[in-house]
Amino acid sequence: MSLALDAAAQDLLFREAQTANSFTDEPVTDEQVQAIYDLVKYAPTAFNQSPLRLTLVRSADARERLVKHAMGANGPKTLSAPLTLVLSTDLDFHEKLPTLFPHAPGIKDAYFSELSVREVAGAQNATLQAGYLILGIRAAGLAAGPMTGFDFAGIDKEFFGDGKQKSFMVINVGKPGADAFFPRSPRLSFDEAVTTV
Amino acid sequence: MSLALDAAAQDLLFREAQTANSFTDEPVTDEQVQAIYDLVKYAPTAFNQSPLRLTLVRSADARERLVKHAMGANGPKTLSAPLTLVLSTDLDFHEKLPTLFPHAPGIKDAYFSELSVREVAGAQNATLQAGYLILGIRAAGLAAGPMTGFDFAGIDKEFFGDGKQKSFMVINVGKPGADAFFPRSPRLSFDEAVTTV
Repeated sequence: MSLALDAAAQDLLFREAQTANSFTDEPVTDEQVQAIYDLVKYAPTAFNQSPLRLTLVRSADARERLVKHAMGANGPKTLSAPLTLVLSTDLDFHEKLPTLFPHAPGIKDAYFSELSVREVAGAQNATLQAGYLILGIRAAGLAAGPMTGFDFAGIDKEFFGDGKQKSFMVINVGKPGADAFFPRSPRLSFDEAVTTV
Repeated sequence: MSLALDAAAQDLLFREAQTANSFTDEPVTDEQVQAIYDLVKYAPTAFNQSPLRLTLVRSADARERLVKHAMGANGPKTLSAPLTLVLSTDLDFHEKLPTLFPHAPGIKDAYFSELSVREVAGAQNATLQAGYLILGIRAAGLAAGPMTGFDFAGIDKEFFGDGKQKSFMVINVGKPGADAFFPRSPRLSFDEAVTTV
């Protein structure tokens, strides 16, 4: 069974790509991040709510403030990457729904007036977008090093003082450095992951 | 700025692809689903925990039992699709960690002995995998119609009596039918979604 996606693209995004744990010094430019964003922005979210926000951590000061909240090896790993992204959910994503979902602008108030609803929907849809983003970074010929071992409440206080952004993932981005990859771990077989009813 | 991913693949996965709301009768085979799974299984999860499980809803009886829990137009839309997938998080994903993360089998007990921890980590990582899966369906030349307008607690009782699976998304899969696509809605600009610090 062959896929419609060509083999080189399968390798680039899935089969040959792996999480990178070290990086070269080669910079990641704003133009590269923009090209990634302009690709992955098209992938779907519920009601096109698009709640994911990215913070590019570039300055030396911001990098130090970020790694204060890292656990274990994630601190040094992050300092070694040419670019680090903080992924967060915009809890006020509903404010943009009249623009993002123009054929039914009323859903902003009908579905999303409650913060508790936005927290759940926002987290789910921003996480979906994180999946698209990881593949988008690979689509740019770069390696991604996604991490969840951070004190995200600490990051939110440090970077998002107004309480409207909830960070949930940090991704190092760059060209893979020496010994960047662990050996590929096993995956579940089709029969372990899939059932038919 | 050009991406490493070729233009045809960019179009297939992101730029030209859209959520489908109707489907032709052309069947989606088990071989197609297996090819999709064998691609997307490689994309990363934390500790390779791979908590996503798929239920292929094929029999007439199972389809009827599923759409009982659909909201609004999702019921008829689902009945019109040649294949529907229920995505769920396996709350016992940690049982497979000694196989999936062989270089540190102790994390099964060190990190994941508490159900409350598995609920949070499992939901986040299964949702990441849902993002990979949506793109994987497109990689097979098929259209995806992801939906969250279902009574998921009802689906869990109906299909997963043991309480170990938490469903969170339903995806119709097939070739797009007549008037399958809404006009593309706007996306946030780079400056609306991205900040540099």
